[in-house]
Amino acid sequence: MNPLAVELNDTIQNEAPALFRLLSELGRELYFPKGILTQTAEANQKAHRYNATIGEARAEGHAMGLPSILRHFTELDADEVLPYAPSAGRADLRVAWREELREKNPSLSGVAVSLPVVTCGITHGLSTIADMFCDPGDVLLVPDKLWGNYLLVFGVKRGAEAVRYPLLRLEGGLDLEGFERVLRQHTPRGKVLVLFNFPNNPTGYSLTPSEADRLCEVLVAAAESGCDIVAMCDDAYFGLFFDEAVLKESLFTRLAAAHPRILAVKLDGASKEDFAWGLRVGFLTYGIAGGAGAYEALEKKTAGCIRGTISNSSNVAQQLVLRAMKDPAYKAQKEEKFALLRRRAEKVREVLADPKFTRVWRPYPFNSGYFMCLRLEHLNAEAFRLRLLEEYGVGVISTSDTDVRVAHSSVDEKDIPDLYEVMFECALRMQGE
Amino acid sequence: MNPLAVELNDTIQNEAPALFRLLSELGRELYFPKGILTQTAEANQKAHRYNATIGEARAEGHAMGLPSILRHFTELDADEVLPYAPSAGRADLRVAWREELREKNPSLSGVAVSLPVVTCGITHGLSTIADMFCDPGDVLLVPDKLWGNYLLVFGVKRGAEAVRYPLLRLEGGLDLEGFERVLRQHTPRGKVLVLFNFPNNPTGYSLTPSEADRLCEVLVAAAESGCDIVAMCDDAYFGLFFDEAVLKESLFTRLAAAHPRILAVKLDGASKEDFAWGLRVGFLTYGIAGGAGAYEALEKKTAGCIRGTISNSSNVAQQLVLRAMKDPAYKAQKEEKFALLRRRAEKVREVLADPKFTRVWRPYPFNSGYFMCLRLEHLNAEAFRLRLLEEYGVGVISTSDTDVRVAHSSVDEKDIPDLYEVMFECALRMQGE
Repeated sequence: MNPLAVELNDTIQNEAPALFRLLSELGRELYFPKGILTQTAEANQKAHRYNATIGEARAEGHAMGLPSILRHFTELDADEVLPYAPSAGRADLRVAWREELREKNPSLSGVAVSLPVVTCGITHGLSTIADMFCDPGDVLLVPDKLWGNYLLVFGVKRGAEAVRYPLLRLEGGLDLEGFERVLRQHTPRGKVLVLFNFPNNPTGYSLTPSEADRLCEVLVAAAESGCDIVAMCDDAYFGLFFDEAVLKESLFTRLAAAHPRILAVKLDGASKEDFAWGLRVGFLTYGIAGGAGAYEALEKKTAGCIRGTISNSSNVAQQLVLRAMKDPAYKAQKEEKFALLRRRAEKVREVLADPKFTRVWRPYPFNSGYFMCLRLEHLNAEAFRLRLLEEYGVGVISTSDTDVRVAHSSVDEKDIPDLYEVMFECALRMQGE
Repeated sequence: MNPLAVELNDTIQNEAPALFRLLSELGRELYFPKGILTQTAEANQKAHRYNATIGEARAEGHAMGLPSILRHFTELDADEVLPYAPSAGRADLRVAWREELREKNPSLSGVAVSLPVVTCGITHGLSTIADMFCDPGDVLLVPDKLWGNYLLVFGVKRGAEAVRYPLLRLEGGLDLEGFERVLRQHTPRGKVLVLFNFPNNPTGYSLTPSEADRLCEVLVAAAESGCDIVAMCDDAYFGLFFDEAVLKESLFTRLAAAHPRILAVKLDGASKEDFAWGLRVGFLTYGIAGGAGAYEALEKKTAGCIRGTISNSSNVAQQLVLRAMKDPAYKAQKEEKFALLRRRAEKVREVLADPKFTRVWRPYPFNSGYFMCLRLEHLNAEAFRLRLLEEYGVGVISTSDTDVRVAHSSVDEKDIPDLYEVMFECALRMQGE
């Protein structure tokens, strides 16, 4: 094992023993290399005469850039767009994101969390956590309504045994008992990874404050019983809360200092929060009760994992997100988009209130995010999807034999009533055949 | 195993049996998921009325973007910058890069190579190859003068046993015998991964045409003896060839159709070729003799690996590279930067021709790229680096006990004579102590 890894492991073991136990075999091996990077960092500080360490082309003190690239920018220049970002992300962006994270999650006040590490989108945050904390055969609890890529990231790529917990009760609300039952089946293993995703893809469900509190209690009880837990909060759709009753903060606020055996990980990013899907700017933030002394070592291991996977994330994308965050108009612009999306969600609810629809489907509870799901009555969801697409020119996603996901994120408010009418007509016709 | 993976494996096994044998355990498991992605693709074609499949926020037929992000662009609009790119990369960019690849490597004429897959920088291409082709304990041959991150990507992250081959003879040229000797030691295993990196980081050495031909012969002989080989060409610094005698094409041209047991992989990107380090646009292209029928399946597995690691690479970065490539001024702009870097390399050679320097160092052969290396005489390289930095304000990289790397990529031509004078003075003083 590399001596740098040993050093980081020692720190982590001293500061947060459960965190050390949770590390995968690879997680223990990881370190942030010195060598070129450290030497370059030293030279950046001290080489006042000539800096011949830099693996970039520079002329007269600036990055050498092609005008055919740079002409696309109104004010960003070569030095702001072209150089490599650090593996853990731009320092200014990491600090800014943590500040915003605290603003958006007031309950984090007084809770020590790590500095966010920049990832190439949230998927990269998830795969980094999988590398660092998931060994083949480890159990990963995922909701039964889920984004399928979790299975590729953790199952195929890292050999996790994915176990589904029931997410919702059709009559409304979180299936907390279902989650607790599944969790308890696996706590005797001593190590469990759990994935939470609110607002949920595909159902658009988010927790109420009391559900979040109770979820936390269930996890703490499992930790108390001797189980170490990695609790991931995939907050991709954070902020898109359309209902007064919904918790406006991340579940991470409840978990980040819940128990010394619970490592909470917040995965979020600009993709949905800043309407910047293809930029690929995500963040990964750690919290563990009493373990703040391990954060720096953990961030270094995380940065090492990133260096060994993609080296670093796009600097121009990070720069754009940072500039947006510092723009005085940023919050008002986000608020405007949010209001538009909320009106769509309200329109969906209004439309679905018509009792006629119960003949063909029941909507799952939804209160947030991009999507909602319908449970079809006596219809195969894939057959329905194909018929709807071929004969009506309407695209939805079939997520199981019975369920379809409908995105209001991509359908204008004025079209929503007709969208559901068309789906209703198609379903009715199919039922009658 | 997922049925989609089985299907891809069957194709690969039929079309290119050695390629199938080379796949890692993970490589065999990989597939490109259908589900949401396929359903969305179908809807994009057929949902002429409402497309409620898209996991992005759209309004009135366009991506919803924040002006605080979009105001940074002169002509690119929300639809060009914000949506997700496909996991394998933008189709238009992949086609454009392959065209350019053929232009830059005329010997590829008539050779069937895969469509390039877009990666988040070359590191991500390397780690994707490591995932797909490297099992724990597999042997990876790397040059003894190397970019250290290979060891993190293949060694730490995938458990490869890295074995070094001697790259250069100090008296000049490639150490072909050294490479052949090391390769032969490992061919009895039946599977070897080999990493080539020309122009080399750190030495700035590139092959002559006859060295490339002979390297290819050595590999073909190993393949003939029954060894399956993944031959990676890390072409990060491609094009920066400063010497008439140097091969102006990639070694990939020699390997892409060399033998049915040799899978050649070209790893290149915009980072250095287009002076766009921090954008993170790399490419990964496959070639194997007689195996063209397996490329599509291999690209799908590659895309699946990317989906399970980062989902997709930055679209804005891809868009910028594509736009630059299509800009009429692109080639002239690159030529101008190239000429500037070549003048620096020539200046370094001119300066080093002074025989006085042989008292303190011998330069390794160099003819390309960003760097050159000096082998210090009777001096510890790290001690030299520190002294040079602390007392002279000059930054270089120590790459071993005896060697330092000096980047002319980041030092202006006018400063080069003084840079070497200062290094000389420092070395002389240290020798005298």
